[in-house]
Amino acid sequence: MRVPVGVAGPLRVNGLFAHGDYYVPLATSEAALVASYNRGAVLITAAGGCSAALLDEGVSRAPGFAFETIAEVGGFLGWVAQELETLKKVAEATTRYGRFKDLYINLEGNHVYLIFDFTTGDAAGQNMVTIATDAIVKHIEQHSPFKPKYCFIEANHSGDKKASAQSFQRVRGKKVTAELRLPGVLVEKVLHTTPRMMVDYWRMSALGGVLSGTLGVQGHYANGLAALYIACGQDAACVSESAVGVTRMETTDDGGLYVAVTLPNLIVGTVGGGTGLPSQRACLEIMGLAGAGHARAFAEVTAALCLAGELSIIGALCAGHFTRAHQMLARRPDRPK
Amino acid sequence: MRVPVGVAGPLRVNGLFAHGDYYVPLATSEAALVASYNRGAVLITAAGGCSAALLDEGVSRAPGFAFETIAEVGGFLGWVAQELETLKKVAEATTRYGRFKDLYINLEGNHVYLIFDFTTGDAAGQNMVTIATDAIVKHIEQHSPFKPKYCFIEANHSGDKKASAQSFQRVRGKKVTAELRLPGVLVEKVLHTTPRMMVDYWRMSALGGVLSGTLGVQGHYANGLAALYIACGQDAACVSESAVGVTRMETTDDGGLYVAVTLPNLIVGTVGGGTGLPSQRACLEIMGLAGAGHARAFAEVTAALCLAGELSIIGALCAGHFTRAHQMLARRPDRPK
Amino acid sequence: MRVPVGVAGPLRVNGLFAHGDYYVPLATSEAALVASYNRGAVLITAAGGCSAALLDEGVSRAPGFAFETIAEVGGFLGWVAQELETLKKVAEATTRYGRFKDLYINLEGNHVYLIFDFTTGDAAGQNMVTIATDAIVKHIEQHSPFKPKYCFIEANHSGDKKASAQSFQRVRGKKVTAELRLPGVLVEKVLHTTPRMMVDYWRMSALGGVLSGTLGVQGHYANGLAALYIACGQDAACVSESAVGVTRMETTDDGGLYVAVTLPNLIVGTVGGGTGLPSQRACLEIMGLAGAGHARAFAEVTAALCLAGELSIIGALCAGHFTRAHQMLARRPDRPK
Amino acid sequence: MRVPVGVAGPLRVNGLFAHGDYYVPLATSEAALVASYNRGAVLITAAGGCSAALLDEGVSRAPGFAFETIAEVGGFLGWVAQELETLKKVAEATTRYGRFKDLYINLEGNHVYLIFDFTTGDAAGQNMVTIATDAIVKHIEQHSPFKPKYCFIEANHSGDKKASAQSFQRVRGKKVTAELRLPGVLVEKVLHTTPRMMVDYWRMSALGGVLSGTLGVQGHYANGLAALYIACGQDAACVSESAVGVTRMETTDDGGLYVAVTLPNLIVGTVGGGTGLPSQRACLEIMGLAGAGHARAFAEVTAALCLAGELSIIGALCAGHFTRAHQMLARRPDRPK
Repeated sequence: MRVPVGVAGPLRVNGLFAHGDYYVPLATSEAALVASYNRGAVLITAAGGCSAALLDEGVSRAPGFAFETIAEVGGFLGWVAQELETLKKVAEATTRYGRFKDLYINLEGNHVYLIFDFTTGDAAGQNMVTIATDAIVKHIEQHSPFKPKYCFIEANHSGDKKASAQSFQRVRGKKVTAELRLPGVLVEKVLHTTPRMMVDYWRMSALGGVLSGTLGVQGHYANGLAALYIACGQDAACVSESAVGVTRMETTDDGGLYVAVTLPNLIVGTVGGGTGLPSQRACLEIMGLAGAGHARAFAEVTAALCLAGELSIIGALCAGHFTRAHQMLARRPDRPK
Repeated sequence: MRVPVGVAGPLRVNGLFAHGDYYVPLATSEAALVASYNRGAVLITAAGGCSAALLDEGVSRAPGFAFETIAEVGGFLGWVAQELETLKKVAEATTRYGRFKDLYINLEGNHVYLIFDFTTGDAAGQNMVTIATDAIVKHIEQHSPFKPKYCFIEANHSGDKKASAQSFQRVRGKKVTAELRLPGVLVEKVLHTTPRMMVDYWRMSALGGVLSGTLGVQGHYANGLAALYIACGQDAACVSESAVGVTRMETTDDGGLYVAVTLPNLIVGTVGGGTGLPSQRACLEIMGLAGAGHARAFAEVTAALCLAGELSIIGALCAGHFTRAHQMLARRPDRPK
Repeated sequence: MRVPVGVAGPLRVNGLFAHGDYYVPLATSEAALVASYNRGAVLITAAGGCSAALLDEGVSRAPGFAFETIAEVGGFLGWVAQELETLKKVAEATTRYGRFKDLYINLEGNHVYLIFDFTTGDAAGQNMVTIATDAIVKHIEQHSPFKPKYCFIEANHSGDKKASAQSFQRVRGKKVTAELRLPGVLVEKVLHTTPRMMVDYWRMSALGGVLSGTLGVQGHYANGLAALYIACGQDAACVSESAVGVTRMETTDDGGLYVAVTLPNLIVGTVGGGTGLPSQRACLEIMGLAGAGHARAFAEVTAALCLAGELSIIGALCAGHFTRAHQMLARRPDRPK
Repeated sequence: MRVPVGVAGPLRVNGLFAHGDYYVPLATSEAALVASYNRGAVLITAAGGCSAALLDEGVSRAPGFAFETIAEVGGFLGWVAQELETLKKVAEATTRYGRFKDLYINLEGNHVYLIFDFTTGDAAGQNMVTIATDAIVKHIEQHSPFKPKYCFIEANHSGDKKASAQSFQRVRGKKVTAELRLPGVLVEKVLHTTPRMMVDYWRMSALGGVLSGTLGVQGHYANGLAALYIACGQDAACVSESAVGVTRMETTDDGGLYVAVTLPNLIVGTVGGGTGLPSQRACLEIMGLAGAGHARAFAEVTAALCLAGELSIIGALCAGHFTRAHQMLARRPDRPK
């Protein structure tokens, strides 16, 4: 099927891995959405670009093991600790790119969750970590002197396909932060509002998020993420987990605006998954981020895109322009009013 | 751009609004995903279909108003209470299909959030409620004897584009539940496991969700929702909020399995948004759900699809088949290993 | 057993129900805690007192009913809707002070939670609402044409004895907000810091709360609440649910500080429970809040106390004095170092 | 002031550290509460005692540092990594009992939270870790080549005095699990219900917790914790954070009941704080847990007490006896009806 694509940019990113001006493809049926992200991107670029930093990376699978007693869990965990190097080898034998990163353990009564964390090269990596963890689980089933009553390769403690508070404690996929200092004159010229008003909005909206019980506090990461994920052959279902993070705004001493976004749960890759489909690959190529060696830069561009989106929508809400795009849409003959 | 589409079905739904066997289009680059949902759909149909019920509906906008003091907030709220009928008229004058449903108030110090809830006919309705609320806010700005220091048409208390705990307390979009009783023989024949093992999985995975800090407890609603939303011209960014809910499994007295899914936050429509694009409309037509009069049935089918996905993935996890599809994908030459 | 008691105050409250200067008894073994709250109280009083407003009140019990099918749930809820006036009478017949306030319904598959909300006069009210709801449940069991498979008088949806996100959506017990405008000179003189530094702290600590996955964002409501609840014969176990809320700080145009606290879940009363014990009653009497007619004022004083505590601890953290009290404690010969 | 104390027990605990039959002092004005916990304790003992295991321990302080840019944060974190051994020495020089355990880092834009985790011997340890972290912060302020704009010794990321999702990811204080296998005949004889009914209750109440947005799923840990903390000179304000965890119930193959409780956030000690007060020390002595060498056993007894409370209340809810105690209280002349 066909989905319309627009492009937002240039979006200048001064990252650890992403350097330069990016034209970001967005697949969405809402033209107003592309216009909004484009406005934010151009504003960022006009200010010299945003900083961005990949902070951490890792994708996990979390098999669960049920034993008869806590005591057996204790014995089992002792064995796992001794066997860890072997488990690592068993896992890494299944993959060229995946690397065993760490093991976290959670325990609830006679149930134990082993949360295996891997780096996955330039792939988003869910298949890779599933296969690697499957090898671990099979090894455990064969060799552990402590036999579980039952076990499952994924016991819903990895955060896969769902927003979770734990992603703030570690990382899921890629954790990225992006920041920008914006002169007051640019805020006024492009967004038709003031840094102070944007900070007033930020404060009220952050607490609006808290009162409504969200994980993290942010505006609409999901809009940019969904459009980018669809365009670039990412797993769109992961918008559920990726659209979590923290936006912060402050006024600066020189009358400007400081903005930061932090996203601990970007599930992105530049190889594998849907990235090999023709139009999806073409979208990655527009950014110069197709294929191996680009996943980290792609993650930084993704965070920068979210920063653009936060600036633009909050600017619109402050200037009273938020409804305008909706009204233009509403005037289209195919839209219900 | 082009996204591959598969079809899962027939999926028999015995709902309040959806009746019959549906072939559900899913836009995804993962063929294994379609196969998995198809397996669940066919299983549901083999069992005579699932029940489904639209429980509630309503979409909100949440303007925020900042005053100098709590006392002014009190005065303002008194005026709002008196003015409510007028606000309702002002809002409904902007729309043919939208109806004012309710007003919830939240207050934090000298800040007040007015959460206006609307029904939106067969549209997902975000544009509609934005325009209606804009009229309300303008009316308030002009007529309220209590002038806010500042106000915003959306202060991040509506849950728009983000998972929130509040959606379980009321509704956002459409709240639907679907349930199925499955004979043990069908579980064994189709899923190659037992009802008891599936309940063991459910218990451990529900607590895995709790330990990892998710909102609700479920497996992978996001997979089905993202693929369906993209195929049917829905707002894919809303996967962030829609992929929240509760799955429950129990064994039944006759050795079978009871399964229920409950989703309080489906943002779906059959008119407006991307539903008018040709391939998206074609996807709705495959189900016989294009155009006016079908949004509620579409919501029930969506919940039934999530039920199919939960059955299939949990069956695979119990039978040890979860990794197999991943391995098939991994053998494809375009996939990183 | 004996618990040391200190007094913080005078604490001036300009509330809807509380008016005047209160000396607030705090039962705690930490003298430094009393000193800290005292400092905040005196500061509030020096600024002319804080505003406080009881926003809402209501205590709930949430019986759960399990049926065979969603359809039966639907039938049952229809009957409940018709029977509501009778249920109300049945409930109110058990109590002199309790009043039926509202019924909220939540549904998950074939399970339904009926959340009955009552006002409870000047009592905290948990016994009262339990007995009233018990009468409702018995009436339902006898008269409903739709018989549940099983039901429980409390199915853990009331929020009793646990922090819950739902308390921000409605109320549990008493919802109160308190606010203060503090001249910059007072901040500097009493707290040895500046309004701006306190706002810098607030921002960073609010996001610290968000990142760590708290419900609401605040500093240490629990300290004041526990000490006050123990002193005044309240249910100290309710600190688990009451210690949730939102603190907000802003600088004001005249160089001062605006502070607000909002607590949606104060479980307090001035009659019943432990309020009749001699020393506990004496503590209420110190404030002039013992016995009937004082619960709402007591709730406002409680919020004001939390405001005092937030001011004092944040001031100490900004001025670098936070550790000092801990050090004094550590020097005592009975303390481990 | 005076608080009534009751004793529940004998409570047999077969732990890693706690061995034997404990008589547990509970300070509360509700005699029914002591009776309920006593019933659970006696039931556990009749079944041969519960298992209990201390899984992890550690108390944290979380200073926050604000820099101008993400780049400076990066430089700062590099320096911290190099300096870690020194920071450890600086911290441990302030304390005889505290040991540096680990450092977790969280980052949000140009803000960084350093979460220092310590073991604290037999003390609850909040003073100890505050003083140790203060030394670290002073060392950083003096020696770091990267100067923060501002920093605070606690930036609200430690979970101190508030329920937080992060406590499930690591530990705060002491993490303990306790479990019991209960023959069906004992359930019937003592609790007047069946294992199956208790599991039906567990399932519905766990989802009631999920729907209401609690952290973890449990019944009323707070009741036992508050009464025990007050009796034994613990910090009652910590009930806010300690009353979080997971209760699980399952039927066993032989017709019995399996129950487990897991609490990741017990803030308990047997030296320091209020443990030196006469009546509080006497309460610890009743259990043989006063003074050095007993904190871990005390934590296990605390979890066992919570297990007793869950069994008793869920039994009462299943047998329809929950209201009875409330009614007895209501008949007392001093109670409002």
